[in-house]
Amino acid sequence: MTNPTAAMLVIGDEILSGRTRDANMHFLAGELTKHGIDMKEVRIVSDDAVAIKAAVLSLSDSYDQVFTSGGIGPTHDDITADCIAAAFGAGLGVRDDARAILQDHYDKMGTELNEARLRMARIPDGAQLIDNPVSAAPGFTIRNVHVMAGVPSVFQAMVASVLPTLTGGQPVLSQTLRVMRGEGDIAATLSALAAAFSDLSIGCYPFQKDGAYGANIVVRGTDGARIDAAMTQLAKEIDL
Amino acid sequence: MTNPTAAMLVIGDEILSGRTRDANMHFLAGELTKHGIDMKEVRIVSDDAVAIKAAVLSLSDSYDQVFTSGGIGPTHDDITADCIAAAFGAGLGVRDDARAILQDHYDKMGTELNEARLRMARIPDGAQLIDNPVSAAPGFTIRNVHVMAGVPSVFQAMVASVLPTLTGGQPVLSQTLRVMRGEGDIAATLSALAAAFSDLSIGCYPFQKDGAYGANIVVRGTDGARIDAAMTQLAKEIDL
Repeated sequence: MTNPTAAMLVIGDEILSGRTRDANMHFLAGELTKHGIDMKEVRIVSDDAVAIKAAVLSLSDSYDQVFTSGGIGPTHDDITADCIAAAFGAGLGVRDDARAILQDHYDKMGTELNEARLRMARIPDGAQLIDNPVSAAPGFTIRNVHVMAGVPSVFQAMVASVLPTLTGGQPVLSQTLRVMRGEGDIAATLSALAAAFSDLSIGCYPFQKDGAYGANIVVRGTDGARIDAAMTQLAKEIDL
Repeated sequence: MTNPTAAMLVIGDEILSGRTRDANMHFLAGELTKHGIDMKEVRIVSDDAVAIKAAVLSLSDSYDQVFTSGGIGPTHDDITADCIAAAFGAGLGVRDDARAILQDHYDKMGTELNEARLRMARIPDGAQLIDNPVSAAPGFTIRNVHVMAGVPSVFQAMVASVLPTLTGGQPVLSQTLRVMRGEGDIAATLSALAAAFSDLSIGCYPFQKDGAYGANIVVRGTDGARIDAAMTQLAKEIDL
């Protein structure tokens, strides 16, 4: 049985220009792995309607679940809802349930629900709202696409709202062996191990520290006993 | 005159699983911005031949320059060179100039150039080598695709080798105004400013700090005087 697949679409000029460092991808990757959903691809595109529409359609076709971050705020550069509605041929308008959530939130804060803020109540026809316990303005799910905010605290809260609603698979387990040896010295051993344990994924991630070569050898799979067996054989063959 | 465009392809299961946090994308984004090349898209794919080939062909078609990171080491999971050669229909074999670089490097270290390490001298036919002053094993450029290592120190050195060979455009300048106001309060002002300065890009990036709402307003463009004018008007209208 294979796990469900997922992709992420990050929308943001500020990341592509190097001004901001994305934090949401790393967070989502870890959460999906725990939930037994395999993240297969991430795309980062700019705040450009053509690029957003093309990417969301491509990812929605290719993977079981798609998560987007960014571009659903109140300002002129927040065009994600418009693009995703257009991509799926859905209408987009202020929806009563979303407006009520915002009205209640801003009433409590003593802040006016002005025209700009009301933009955040525009939801594509047929979408379900995603709860936002941090700042109220909801995300939404349309088809297999979950549209969420870019602010990390809000993104994380929305992921927590969505994930329990999705069918997960078997969580992927991993063990890591850190060795202070060059990759070239251990490559033949790893190659043989990968052949002997073809049900596991065996990765080798080199690093340099204080001028010396090392590598993290990561064994991944869904069967803990098989991973134990591979790690035992690995430790013996690498002769630590 | 528009700047040249670029995309990045990150190859790595370890990033998609959440085990490792990518550092290369943020570095490259900053370097390209300084060089006047506009990064338009980033894709992260797993160590999967079909996914790598499809992504590199798509990005190579769509953008002026493509930068890849990861998967060019000596171990069995390093399949990037094979995939990129196959994608472009180029042969792949150990090349004398690359072998000589490795031989020299490992001779100096007193290390054997074994079969695994020799994998790193396999270069697609017609490609140019990319200098690696950190750990010798070269990257390569084929067509408009620059294939580089995933280890951050090596990736950065290879970017430094490649960038001076590329035609840049006008560096994109930016100024940021940080305001402790909710996006919803300043959205109308920003929308009018964006219309008045349509030659600039005006982005608004919200944050929450100690329970209060704030936003970084970023004005970007290639003409410093225009950016100054927009920032002056912005400061007056936001009434700091």
